[in-house]
This record gives sequence, C-alpha cells and structure tokens, in this order.
Amino acid sequence: MTDILTRFEALATDHAPGQEVRLARTVEADLSGPEWPGEIVDFSHGDVDAFEPAPGALDAFVGAVEAGGRRAYTEYRGAEDIRAGLAGRLEKLTGAAVDGENGMILTPGTQGALFLALGSTVASGDKVAIIEPDYFANRKLVRFFGGQVVPVSIDYETAEVGTGLDLDALRSAFQDGCRLLVFSNPNNPTGLIYSPSEIAGIASLASTFGATVICDQLYSRLVYPGQVYTQYRAQDVSPDNVLTIMGPSKFESLSGYRLGVAFGAPDIIGRMEKLQAIMSLRAAGYAQPVLETWLCEPADWLDNRIAAHQAIRDTLVPIFRDGGFSVRTPHGGSYVFPALPDAGISLSAFVSKARTQAKVVVTPGTEFGPYETSIRLNYSQDHDRAVAGAKRLVELAKSMRN
Amino acid sequence: MTDILTRFEALATDHAPGQEVRLARTVEADLSGPEWPGEIVDFSHGDVDAFEPAPGALDAFVGAVEAGGRRAYTEYRGAEDIRAGLAGRLEKLTGAAVDGENGMILTPGTQGALFLALGSTVASGDKVAIIEPDYFANRKLVRFFGGQVVPVSIDYETAEVGTGLDLDALRSAFQDGCRLLVFSNPNNPTGLIYSPSEIAGIASLASTFGATVICDQLYSRLVYPGQVYTQYRAQDVSPDNVLTIMGPSKFESLSGYRLGVAFGAPDIIGRMEKLQAIMSLRAAGYAQPVLETWLCEPADWLDNRIAAHQAIRDTLVPIFRDGGFSVRTPHGGSYVFPALPDAGISLSAFVSKARTQAKVVVTPGTEFGPYETSIRLNYSQDHDRAVAGAKRLVELAKSMRN
Repeated sequence: MTDILTRFEALATDHAPGQEVRLARTVEADLSGPEWPGEIVDFSHGDVDAFEPAPGALDAFVGAVEAGGRRAYTEYRGAEDIRAGLAGRLEKLTGAAVDGENGMILTPGTQGALFLALGSTVASGDKVAIIEPDYFANRKLVRFFGGQVVPVSIDYETAEVGTGLDLDALRSAFQDGCRLLVFSNPNNPTGLIYSPSEIAGIASLASTFGATVICDQLYSRLVYPGQVYTQYRAQDVSPDNVLTIMGPSKFESLSGYRLGVAFGAPDIIGRMEKLQAIMSLRAAGYAQPVLETWLCEPADWLDNRIAAHQAIRDTLVPIFRDGGFSVRTPHGGSYVFPALPDAGISLSAFVSKARTQAKVVVTPGTEFGPYETSIRLNYSQDHDRAVAGAKRLVELAKSMRN
Repeated sequence: MTDILTRFEALATDHAPGQEVRLARTVEADLSGPEWPGEIVDFSHGDVDAFEPAPGALDAFVGAVEAGGRRAYTEYRGAEDIRAGLAGRLEKLTGAAVDGENGMILTPGTQGALFLALGSTVASGDKVAIIEPDYFANRKLVRFFGGQVVPVSIDYETAEVGTGLDLDALRSAFQDGCRLLVFSNPNNPTGLIYSPSEIAGIASLASTFGATVICDQLYSRLVYPGQVYTQYRAQDVSPDNVLTIMGPSKFESLSGYRLGVAFGAPDIIGRMEKLQAIMSLRAAGYAQPVLETWLCEPADWLDNRIAAHQAIRDTLVPIFRDGGFSVRTPHGGSYVFPALPDAGISLSAFVSKARTQAKVVVTPGTEFGPYETSIRLNYSQDHDRAVAGAKRLVELAKSMRN
C-alpha cells in the first residue's frame, strides 16, 4: 500500500476551505488571548445566504424532477438541449465559437470539470505549468495524476497592470517540456485579472510550443468597473488547444446544485466524457436544467451583483490596509489575499486564533503555494458581517504583535 | 500525449448504458429487416417514471435550498447530521457497526463512491481481483488507476445455489498477489446473489491474505422472496479491510439526485475524502438531505416495490426462455442477462437492430467481460412496456435465425 499512500501525501485537506469544522474537532486547541464577540464569519467560501440566487433555479430543478426519466438520465456529457442553449450564450460571452454537440461537457461543479480536464491531459511524468499563487487544487490534481508541477509566478504584490505574470518563466517552462498550462482568471486567491498583453503573451507562447491551455474562468462574470477582461479562447490560438471552465458559482448563490461546464477542444472533451462515465456518470440529471437559468438573468441582475461585491471590496481593503496588512485591490471575483502586518506572526497560529478567538474563518496562504504570511478571504458575504469580521482580524493581528 | 491516449483506450463508452443516443447519431446505420411498432423501451437503465420515488425526497431537496448556506456547504465527506442518521439505519440493515463520523462518506452517486474507492486503493501495478461478469466500470476503474485486472469467474449459467463463484480461482488470485477484491451483490449483470457459503468463503480467503474487499451493494434492498442476502461486512473480517457501497438507486427512482454512500474502513474513507476534495468537493449539498428519506420509507413501501419487480421478472424470464434464450432467474435487483438463442447471431448486429428495428435498447454482454452472446436488461420498467419490449426482442432473434 506504500504507493497509494504516497499518492495521497499531496492531498492533505485539513486546512482546505470548508474542512475547518473537521480540524476543529480533531486538533487539541491550545490557544489563549483576547476573544471578540460576534457572529461567526466564514471567509473560506462565499455565503450563499448573503445574496439571492438568480430567479428560476429551484423551479428548473423541480421541473426536472416532475419530468422524471427524461431528465434523470442524460448522455454522460449532459443533456443535448441544455448544451445547445448554453453554447449560444457562452459563444456570446467569450467571443469565440462554442460547439455544444462535440465541444462541451456538463460536470459536477467546476471542481468536477477541473478534475476531468487534468485527468484527460496529464499523464505520468508530464510537466505542467501552474501559476503561483493559484487555486490550491491545481497543484494537487497534477500530482495526483502523476505529473510534475512547474511553477510560474505572478508578481501580484507589485504589478501595476494585470497580475505581474512572469512570461519569461512561462517560456522557460515550455522550453523545459511543459505542454500544458492551467490558470484561473480572475486569479484565485488574489482577485487580479490578466491584462490583455499578458493573455496575448500566453497565447503567443502556447502557439509557439503547441501547448494546451486550461482556463478556469469561474469568476469571470464578476469584473469591476474600469477593468478589462480578456478572453483567452478568443485569441489567435488553435481551438484544439484550449479548454475553458466555468459554472454557476458562489457569487451566483448556485453552488449547492454542484454544476460546472467545460468547453473547447473536442478531443479533450471526448476523453473527459469517458472519465466522467467512471467518475460520476454525469452531472446530476435533475440539476442540469438549472443551467438554463444561467447566463440569461434579468437585465441589471449582474450589474447589481457586481456593485454589491464592489461595495464590500471597497470597504474591506482600507480596513486591512489601515490595520497594517499589505493587500492588492481585487479586479474581479470575490477573493482577496492580504499579507499579515508582521512577518513575525505565525500564519498557523493566526488562522487558528482567528477561528477560536475572533470567530472568523480564513484560508491560510500556504494552500496556494509558498505563502507563509498571507490569508485568503472570499468576501461574497453579508456586507456588515464581512466588515465586522475584517475588523476582528485586524484586532487579532494587533494583539499578536504586542 | 501517447501516454494519456493509452490510458483512455480502456474507457470506451460508445455502448455504455445511456450513451446509445450518441452512437445512433455518429454511426452510419446499414440495418435492414422487419420493423416492429411500439414505444421505445430502454432496458439500458431503470425507468424512474415507472415507479414513484419514496415520499419526501423532493421536499428534502427544496428544504435544503431554503436552508441555504447551511446545506450548500458541507464537509467534503458530507453533512455530519445526515451521516449520523444514516449510520444507525445502515448498521441495522447490514448487521455490523457503522461509524458515521470516521467511517462514512457521501458521494455523487454510487459511481462516485466506486471511483473514489478504487482511486484510494489501487496504485500503479497493483493486481486486483474482479468478478467476471460484473459491473462494467470495475475493470475500467482498475485500469484507469494503473492496476491489473485478475478475473475471477462465476459460473452463473449452471450454478444451482448462489452465483457459482470459483473460490479456487479467488484463492489463486490472492496467492498471485491480489490484495483487493471488488464485487457487486446482487451481481450485475446476472441478478444472482452470493450464497451464505460463498460470502463466508470470500471472507475466509480475504482474512487469510489480509485482502481488502469492496462490496457494491447498490441493489441489495431488492431481494426476492425465498432468497437469503448475506452481508459481507457482518462476517468475521477486520473492519479495516471492508468497504461497502450503497445508494438510493434506480429502483427507488432517486437516481436523478446522484447520491451514494460508502462506509467501512476509516483509512480508506479518509483517502476517499481527500480525493473527493479534488474530484467534486462533495455530493451536491442540496441533494444530501434526500438521504434522510432513504432506508426509512413507510411500512410496506419496500415490499410493494419488490413485488412489482418480481412480477415483471416472472413474466419476462418465461418469454425469453420460450423464445430460445438461455437465462437464469435473478435472485435480486432488476438486471437479467439472457443469452441469445443462436450463437450464430452477431451480438453487435442484434443490439443495433434491437434499437432501430424493434425500438428496444439493451446493453451488449461485452460490456461485462467476454460475453459475446448475452444482453443485459434492467427490468425496472413499466410492466406492460417491458413485456412488449421483451416480445419484440424474441421476434427479432427469430428473424435473425431465419
């Protein structure tokens, strides 16, 4: 069993978002210090209670249950009519052709899409370029499928435009044998959006080396005013070398349905369907019609949702800065990645004390790469509770510096 | 990319249940012969419209949506309260202790449970004992994770009790290095149930060799009168070496929710949770409460459901026998595995003609192992339509013999 245990060493989940409850039950607490009153604020993921889902989602689900077998079973890649409808809306959104018949698969969440995508492109020994920092599962997935992570950094702390992507490092990664790049845009955990020239630079290098690019665009609908979002798939790249992942997400308050969609390269989609056949057969049949309410919400719905998140962002960022945290203002999405005000504060102590003394759950930066001084927050939350939670984190940091 | 293509060679899905629609669109039909009128009967999976789901399932889902965030997010292994409730009912059902806290995980369908279970026990090069015939995904999963299938046959055509399991072959498989056995009970595709002495024989050999056993008991609630169902996990075996998989299934008309549960060995469950964290995060949060309506249905509900399936079985089996098919009477579940009346009939031609000329979808025996003359049917269907479909299959076979 040694080999299987080795495979799982890279998959620790104790500090993963949502698992803190388990950690709290299993780790002996030896924490002391001041305590702050208040309701628990869980910044490890978005609070789907803070925002109403778009209209029609539950009705679509109930309608599917009432329709019965026609909706319970679908092709492994998802119901044909739902894919066809989505294709048109995704084509409009991303500015490049989408083939609902051969170039799309519906999945159990965007996590399911990422798993299938990497399982269909990463073989044992393959080198894979992974942005650092980026979504924590990317590195774990590469390692689980036997690949080797080649980190490519973004200089998120000092970049004045975009993410500060190190294109020279990406070129070196491709020269070194990488034929796959995986990245999220907006970047998770920093909330930064790649500039048009960064996206063009990735496209140029990928074309030169014939590399495949998997873009996780889960939060790409949530772009703040003044920012430009560049669709990678609309660049001058071979459609056979691009896979895009989206889904109705936390800020849409639909994550409880577990739906995602991947679209692009037909060969990769074909393998993803074969893998889904043994992984979960299909995205839940009754949930798939919820996708018919997505990307076609009422006018102003998206604008209002963006404005509400912008208001939270614009309150939280100054609170952290005033408290001595170093933090970039997110361009999109609902993640922010502040660095602790004093490098002497132990990250694990801060995260534990935040939970027990300040009643605030945050994700340690180490989930996203070698970031021993940062924490990630998802601020898709009730505005007032988020502000109260941020203030308690600042107080906690102060108490730990004294 | 050679390596990744090799990995996917074992994962063909064209003839998998539910995928026939895709095949029909992509394969040039060159079929001629008589046609039979009638409604399409899809025996590739159960018809969830034929039987009402147990009361309360949809209400549980809607209640979860209304509860919001508390239900949308759960530990990766599933909501604690739901696991606790299930543990008591599964303990009663299976006759051995169930630890809801450390020995259970909720999954996206039983397929998800099987995927996680094999991904958590099969490493590259491992030999795995697989029953032949058995559920088609078992072999594919072993190969996907780099393992080597060691087939152990059941003599389902002639066994007078149980499945005709070849215990000598199982011993040889363990002697040959297998440390894992995967099997379904009732057996899919034959519907046979392992006898008490067969289960005891497996337990004895597994204990001798320290082997882990994964029991897929998806259809174990559907046992016909006169049959004895023996719980493997209640045998004298180490609890650390047994994992049991169940779920609300087709015959319960709940498959559209995509739910499964695996329970047993805490170490394996722990790895399964780590894998689920990168596979799909969790079973859909809103769907998990549907499990609270499962294994606690109203009195008589199960008896009535069994009687309805028995009635279909007892009508279908004589139709096939009278038509010259060779078929064992299923002991449980809703699968039957008739052999064509004439070995000269091409299986692939029969399956294709069944679909196009007789409007009946069946799964070729080759999905379950080297069974070139058998077809599998799931007879959890509307009674009258199932009978009409079976009669058309008999007519088709006659037409192909002439």
